[in-house]
Amino acid sequence: MAATLVDLLISARWIIPIIPRGKVFEDCTVVIDQGKIVALLPTIEATRKYNGQEHTHLEQHVLLPGLVNAHGHAAMTLLRGYADDLPLHTWLEKHIWPTEAQWISSDFVRDGTELAIAEMLRSGTTCFSDMYFFPDTVAETVNHTGIRSQIAFPVFDFPSAWGRGPEDYIHKGLQLHDDHKDRDLIRIAFGPHAPYSLSTEPMEKIATYAEELDACIQIHLHETEQEIADHISAHGNRPIERLVDIGLMSPLTQCVHMTQINDQDIATLVEHNANVVHCPNSNLKLASGFSPIAEFLNNGINVALGTDGAASNNSLNMFNEINTAALVAKAVAGNASTMNAHEALEMATINGAKAMGWDDHIGSIEAGKSADIIAVSMGAIESEPLYNLPSQLVYTHAGSQVSHAWVNGTALMVDRQLQTLNEHEILTKTRQWQKQLSS
Amino acid sequence: MAATLVDLLISARWIIPIIPRGKVFEDCTVVIDQGKIVALLPTIEATRKYNGQEHTHLEQHVLLPGLVNAHGHAAMTLLRGYADDLPLHTWLEKHIWPTEAQWISSDFVRDGTELAIAEMLRSGTTCFSDMYFFPDTVAETVNHTGIRSQIAFPVFDFPSAWGRGPEDYIHKGLQLHDDHKDRDLIRIAFGPHAPYSLSTEPMEKIATYAEELDACIQIHLHETEQEIADHISAHGNRPIERLVDIGLMSPLTQCVHMTQINDQDIATLVEHNANVVHCPNSNLKLASGFSPIAEFLNNGINVALGTDGAASNNSLNMFNEINTAALVAKAVAGNASTMNAHEALEMATINGAKAMGWDDHIGSIEAGKSADIIAVSMGAIESEPLYNLPSQLVYTHAGSQVSHAWVNGTALMVDRQLQTLNEHEILTKTRQWQKQLSS
Repeated sequence: MAATLVDLLISARWIIPIIPRGKVFEDCTVVIDQGKIVALLPTIEATRKYNGQEHTHLEQHVLLPGLVNAHGHAAMTLLRGYADDLPLHTWLEKHIWPTEAQWISSDFVRDGTELAIAEMLRSGTTCFSDMYFFPDTVAETVNHTGIRSQIAFPVFDFPSAWGRGPEDYIHKGLQLHDDHKDRDLIRIAFGPHAPYSLSTEPMEKIATYAEELDACIQIHLHETEQEIADHISAHGNRPIERLVDIGLMSPLTQCVHMTQINDQDIATLVEHNANVVHCPNSNLKLASGFSPIAEFLNNGINVALGTDGAASNNSLNMFNEINTAALVAKAVAGNASTMNAHEALEMATINGAKAMGWDDHIGSIEAGKSADIIAVSMGAIESEPLYNLPSQLVYTHAGSQVSHAWVNGTALMVDRQLQTLNEHEILTKTRQWQKQLSS
Repeated sequence: MAATLVDLLISARWIIPIIPRGKVFEDCTVVIDQGKIVALLPTIEATRKYNGQEHTHLEQHVLLPGLVNAHGHAAMTLLRGYADDLPLHTWLEKHIWPTEAQWISSDFVRDGTELAIAEMLRSGTTCFSDMYFFPDTVAETVNHTGIRSQIAFPVFDFPSAWGRGPEDYIHKGLQLHDDHKDRDLIRIAFGPHAPYSLSTEPMEKIATYAEELDACIQIHLHETEQEIADHISAHGNRPIERLVDIGLMSPLTQCVHMTQINDQDIATLVEHNANVVHCPNSNLKLASGFSPIAEFLNNGINVALGTDGAASNNSLNMFNEINTAALVAKAVAGNASTMNAHEALEMATINGAKAMGWDDHIGSIEAGKSADIIAVSMGAIESEPLYNLPSQLVYTHAGSQVSHAWVNGTALMVDRQLQTLNEHEILTKTRQWQKQLSS
C-alpha cells in the first residue's frame, strides 16, 4: 500500500497531547495536512502510512498544543516596566491611563502588538486574547503574523483615541465582528472593560448583541477589594450580581481576575457556567489578592490562564504564568497536591480554548483539530534529570526553551527564528517608542 | 601619568552595584586586580587610569554582584522532579528519605553538586549555601569549580551513609571546618537539620562550638504548621523558643523558611539579631505557607533568599526566586509597594552575604570586595522596552540571559560557556543516575 502524501510530519521524542488527560507519548509523530491534524501515531507507523512534503525531526523535544493566553493587552508591551511597585488604582489612574491618553494611536498599537506577538511566540503562545484600543489594527497585525487571536474590542464610558464613547465603541466593534466573521484565525469578542468603567445600559446592549452573534464576552471582574466595596456603595450589590441582572453572565462570559470571591460568587459562576481567566502574576504584582483556584476547580468551573498586559506582569511568557499558577494554588489551598502539573498544563491550553468557545479547533493535539503546536527543547542542564516531563515543564520555567511554533500547520518559529516577524525591526521601533514615552 | 596595569577591566553599559542603594550606573568599568575590585569608574576615566591584561566589553549588559543562594541541597538536583505535587512530610518520609537512604554516596554528591553548580552559574549564582551529606565531597567539588560556598555540614539524630549519628556528624564537621579554615572560597557552617530531626543535647554542643569558632549556623525552622503543632505537643513551646533556651539564636544563625510566625517570633528574631532565609518557591510548592516578608523587613530583620533543593523547587535559578519573592511579598502584605525591585535584588545579594557574615567580601560591587560579578544581557525581545532596569531584572525572569560569571576575578562562565565544568559530561552522568534511580 502506497504512503499517503501530506503537508507535514513532526516527529518528536515526546508528545503531551493534553487530551487524553495525563498522557505522555514517546517517539510519536503528528501528521498534518491542510492545516489540520490528521493523526497522532507512533513514528514507525506514521512514516509507513504517510509521506510528508516536509518532515521535522525533534529528537530531544516535547510537542504540546500551542499555549492559549486567555487575557492580555498586547500593545501595552510598549509599557513594560513603565510604572512598577504601585497599587492597581494608582498605577492605572496616575500612570497608565494618562500615558495612554497622550500616546495611543494605531501606530502604537501595531508596533506594541508586534512586539507582544514576537514575545508570545518565543515562549510558546499560539493563541492570545486581546483587549485594547484600535482592535482593527490588532486584527491586521494578527493576520500578517499568522498567530491566532480572540480580539475583545474594548467598551468604556470614557472616550479615547479609538472612539467617542460606549455607543461608538460598540458600533465599531460590531463592524469589526462583521469584517472578520469568516476568518479562521480571528474571533471578535465583546470587551466591556469592567463594572467600574462601564455603565449598565451599554452592558445590556452588549449582552443582547453577544447572545445574538454567539460571541464571547471578556470582562475584568472582582479584581480588587476596593472594586467590590465601591460597587456595593454605588449599586448595593457585588459586581457579579449586577452582571447577572444585566444578563451578562453565560457560558460565553470570561471573568478575568476573580480574586475577591465568596460562596455566592462561586454558585453564580456554576449556575451560569461562566469561565474564569486567572492572571496570577498580575494579581500578585498589583497586590490585588489571591484567586481561590482549588475551589473553582472543585466546583467544576473552567479556569483559563492569562498573563495580563506586560505593564503589570512584566512578561508575556505563559510558562511563567503556569508556574506561578501551580505554586500559588497549592499555597492558597494549603495542599501541595492542588493543581498538579497536568492540570496546570490544561489550564494553559484546553481550558483557554474552552473559555473562547474554540475547543473544537485548538487546545489539544488530536486528529481533526487545527495544527497549533509548539516544541520545547529538553536537553539542557536546567531540565535534567527528567523523571517527570509535565512537572519539568511546569516547575522549571521552560519558556525560553520553546524552539518551534506552528499555527494551522504553518511554522511561525523554527529553531527560535521567527518566520513572519523581523526581530531587529521590532526592537528598533520599540526603542523609538521608549524614547518618545520617556521624553 | 602612565596607566596602572591590572588583571581585568569589565566595561558595561550598566552596573547595579547594590551599594550605594538604588543606584544604576551607565557606561562604567569595574577595575579588578588579584581577585579584588580596585575601583568602579566611568569607562572614560577607568581606561585613562588603568590598563587591563584583559578587557571585557559588554555593550548591552548589566553587571551585578554575583547572586547569593542562601539555602539549598545541591546534590538533590539529581532528584529534580522525582516526587512532585506532594505535601512536605509525605514527600520527605515516603519519597526523598527512602531514596536517599538507598542511593546517597560520595559519588552521588559529587555528580549532583556539579550539576547544581552548572545550573547556578548559568543563572547568575556565584555563592551558594549547601546542607547535605558528604560535605567533604561538596567542598572538593566547590574547590575545583571555583564557585564560592558556605557548606553547612548536616547534623541529624539518625545515621546516614555519611555518619553514625549526631556525635559523629559533629566530629566530622569540626574536622572539615579545620581543613578549610584558610580557604578563601569556602566557609564551613553548622547545619543542625531542624528542631524535629535533632535532639536538644547535640544542638547545645553546636551552639557552644559555633560561638567558639565564630561559625554560622543554618537550620530549617518554622517551615510548616505541623512542625509547630508537633513541637508544642512534645516540648510545650514553639521551636524558636527552644532554640533560644539552647543558645542557638544569634547573629550567626540563619533561620530557613519561617513561614509560621507570630509577633513573639518576630521579637525573638529582632532580639537575637538572627537572619531569615526565605525560600518562596519551595514554600509554595510544598504548601508550607506564606512568609511575612513585609513584617520582617519593617522590623529590620535581615532576609536572605534561597532556592532550597531542586527536589522541591524544581529550579536553582535565583532570578525565578527573586521574582516569586517580590510578587508574593506584595500579595501577602496587600501592598504593591512592598519589596520593590531594588529591595528584591538586595535580598539576593548583600542580604545573603550578611547572613553568612561574608558582607565584607561579597554582595556588592565596591572597591575592596572580591570580584564576584555577573553580567546579564538585556538586548532581547523579552527585555524591551527598558524603562527601569532593576524592574526588568526582577519581573521578567532574566536568569537565562546571564552571560558571564566571575568569582574572585576568575571567569567561570563566558558567553554562557562554563569554563571549569564540562556540561556534556555532567549531562551524561546525570542521565546515568536517572536510570539507576528509576530502576
